[in-house]
Amino acid sequence: MYDVIIIGGGPAGYLAAERLGHRGKKVLLIEKQHLGGTCLNAGCIPTKTLLNSAKQYLHAQDGQFGVHAEKVSFNLSEMMAWKEKVVGNLRGGLASQMKRFKVETLSGTGIVEVQGSFRGVRFVKEGEPGSGVLYETKAILAAAGSVPVLPPIPGTEGNSKLIDSTGILSVSGIPAKLCIIGGGVIGAEFASLFGMLGSEVSVVEMMDEIIPPMDKDHAPLMRKALRNTGFHLGCRVTRIEGGNVFFTDKDGTAGTLAADMVLMAVGRRAEIASWGAKEAGIDVTGKGVTVDNRMRTNISGIWAAGDVNGRSMLAHSAYRMAEVAVNDICAWLEGADSKDFMRYNAVPWAVYSNPEAAGAGITEQEALSRGIAIRTASAPMYMSGRFLAENIPGAPGTVKVIADERSGVLLGVHILGPYAPEMIWGAAALIENEMRIDDVKELVFPHPSVCEIIREAVWNF
Amino acid sequence: MYDVIIIGGGPAGYLAAERLGHRGKKVLLIEKQHLGGTCLNAGCIPTKTLLNSAKQYLHAQDGQFGVHAEKVSFNLSEMMAWKEKVVGNLRGGLASQMKRFKVETLSGTGIVEVQGSFRGVRFVKEGEPGSGVLYETKAILAAAGSVPVLPPIPGTEGNSKLIDSTGILSVSGIPAKLCIIGGGVIGAEFASLFGMLGSEVSVVEMMDEIIPPMDKDHAPLMRKALRNTGFHLGCRVTRIEGGNVFFTDKDGTAGTLAADMVLMAVGRRAEIASWGAKEAGIDVTGKGVTVDNRMRTNISGIWAAGDVNGRSMLAHSAYRMAEVAVNDICAWLEGADSKDFMRYNAVPWAVYSNPEAAGAGITEQEALSRGIAIRTASAPMYMSGRFLAENIPGAPGTVKVIADERSGVLLGVHILGPYAPEMIWGAAALIENEMRIDDVKELVFPHPSVCEIIREAVWNF
Repeated sequence: MYDVIIIGGGPAGYLAAERLGHRGKKVLLIEKQHLGGTCLNAGCIPTKTLLNSAKQYLHAQDGQFGVHAEKVSFNLSEMMAWKEKVVGNLRGGLASQMKRFKVETLSGTGIVEVQGSFRGVRFVKEGEPGSGVLYETKAILAAAGSVPVLPPIPGTEGNSKLIDSTGILSVSGIPAKLCIIGGGVIGAEFASLFGMLGSEVSVVEMMDEIIPPMDKDHAPLMRKALRNTGFHLGCRVTRIEGGNVFFTDKDGTAGTLAADMVLMAVGRRAEIASWGAKEAGIDVTGKGVTVDNRMRTNISGIWAAGDVNGRSMLAHSAYRMAEVAVNDICAWLEGADSKDFMRYNAVPWAVYSNPEAAGAGITEQEALSRGIAIRTASAPMYMSGRFLAENIPGAPGTVKVIADERSGVLLGVHILGPYAPEMIWGAAALIENEMRIDDVKELVFPHPSVCEIIREAVWNF
Repeated sequence: MYDVIIIGGGPAGYLAAERLGHRGKKVLLIEKQHLGGTCLNAGCIPTKTLLNSAKQYLHAQDGQFGVHAEKVSFNLSEMMAWKEKVVGNLRGGLASQMKRFKVETLSGTGIVEVQGSFRGVRFVKEGEPGSGVLYETKAILAAAGSVPVLPPIPGTEGNSKLIDSTGILSVSGIPAKLCIIGGGVIGAEFASLFGMLGSEVSVVEMMDEIIPPMDKDHAPLMRKALRNTGFHLGCRVTRIEGGNVFFTDKDGTAGTLAADMVLMAVGRRAEIASWGAKEAGIDVTGKGVTVDNRMRTNISGIWAAGDVNGRSMLAHSAYRMAEVAVNDICAWLEGADSKDFMRYNAVPWAVYSNPEAAGAGITEQEALSRGIAIRTASAPMYMSGRFLAENIPGAPGTVKVIADERSGVLLGVHILGPYAPEMIWGAAALIENEMRIDDVKELVFPHPSVCEIIREAVWNF
């Protein structure tokens, strides 16, 4: 009998496996395809690898800062090969970690079975040795992840010009015209990537603005800065014909975009169907598996972490959820309760487009809609010496800081500009610690850095 | 009568002026040369600007990540022009800030005069209107900065091949062979700069290792990674003849280096002589003006902040010292004491070489020498997906974390690798807040980022 069987080998699944293995638990991890899940194989890592190549290409072209180069070019198949190498290395690293922590792994589908107090997972993969076997376990962690949403828009089925966020990571050529349906983080990153590589990009977004977690003052700066990219906001796609995308705007006016490739990037939804959740009696809503703040489902002995519970569909949220679940599973195995709870208020987000952006905590708009009285302060990055040194005049860059009006406690930090994804963790730490603005003012930031613009903003309160 | 006269317009001086002006004080700032001091005019900003150009040059050459370029070159005079433009912009920004906060400024030397309870500063500059006038003030902030140390080595005087850290920022050509005396932060940054631009660089350092604040496991990785640079550690320079540098190693064995240019970068010392400190009875040691943790000198009504007090010769330390001094001056003007004190334990440092590095808090070696019982944990950056995506195989990158052995309180974080200067502020904040390792484990870092390697290291405890 296993202590824990984990369904899904993405960030939540593999990290839980490592932590449980480290704590001496007998663990089986079942993964359908590749260790690393969407994040490693079709998400974070491949996109950031390709975005890095595109940024290098752009920087080499610039001819700025006294540096010159001729015949700057990129080779897409070399870019793809580099991406595959990076993904392969990380996948190999994960396999080693599983061995190191004595985690057993199976490649196929795991289906939860619940009978009274019995908890088991049936392993299924046609033609695979051991397929059909029901493995008994004390606890189950569902970490089945998510899949891209394919909305029921006429013309999507069998459309060879239509591609999803997984497929576009392996294209063999750069489309002259790319239409992206959806302006969230995924849509924005691909717009930036292909815009840098020379595509003429159009983004059609149903909402009034792109990138939902982004400050509403920053998003227009991002739109303006994304190279070769046009936006159709507040527009609903009505049908697709080959590469032609038909949409209507808020006033009902119809429009058409003609593209060589259409990327569907309207979001992802929790993967529920494949692992027997409903049959086992697990509570599920349209968002995903219902969990409490210890990642417990309604069924004793079953936890759900990562995208599958739909609470925060980010790889790093999945990591933390996995740790919370592991702490609770280990306590539960000994008849106790864990005191570790998942908190979402300081989870950062990051966009690796050009320019980059990141944030942690609430936005001004979120505070408004939730009735939280706040004060805000901002600072432009051109007040940073390092930013001026490393960027051409007019490059976008700004920081906004949100604090509780009465207590002065830091509630949010939002950054548009270089290094944002690498500096945001400090803001997340301050928010997690409920630091007051007056305390943040006393922190010492390195000079000259771009991050010290956060200090500058805080002093503008 | 002024509320405060500030001597020196570097980071401590101009920031104090801004803060005091913001609080409605009548302020006079006297600066000998340019607003911004060493940092802006001959230190942080010009070096980082040139280093950015050199990094761009290197990256364009690489031919990695699927990006190609031919005839990659740099134009030194364009690089210098860009540097001058950045410095000029920031200098202009400071002048605007002085106007905005109604700070009066004078260009010349300020000399402190103390007679009983009288406090004044005499303004001196030959041929300048108003020179010789004694301005009365309630308080004085000495922020006269520091100057490069020119050790009494035979052959330094009148040597046209010898240059200091200010002069080398305006060279008209790249020396084929550059010898740098001193392997501190300044020496290492210039080694990196000229090594990237094609010089054959030799660094002669008296200590056993370069970059004193750096972890002693990281420094050798830095040495190995600095392009075109060789090191002679534990070596004392005995004389210089033109471009020939003679030295002896620890065993007394003599050696010679032949260079086209010799950079003296053995450090900086507090500037004391020019502003009448001793004549006014201000306590001074070999390190600088003696101050308490509110930046008060022994003379009532006189404070000293920044390099001039020798406590932490970093621009960002100067900023914080200036704020501490301003808080105390404002309290003192109203007959009270400030409760704001300068703390040095969480002041970060950063090196903008290629690779970059940064740290905050104590090193393993410092803990050892101070008898602090610690635990350490490390993680290599190749465990970060973003690091793998953006760096060629074998690129250096590592993080070491230091915690108090018993309490688990975080005492130090040391980073070698990309983005280090932009991610270290979070570590400084955690150290300042005396966070325990178990709390740091619960923080959520964005994925995929290089900074999440800090989390990885913390989980290795």
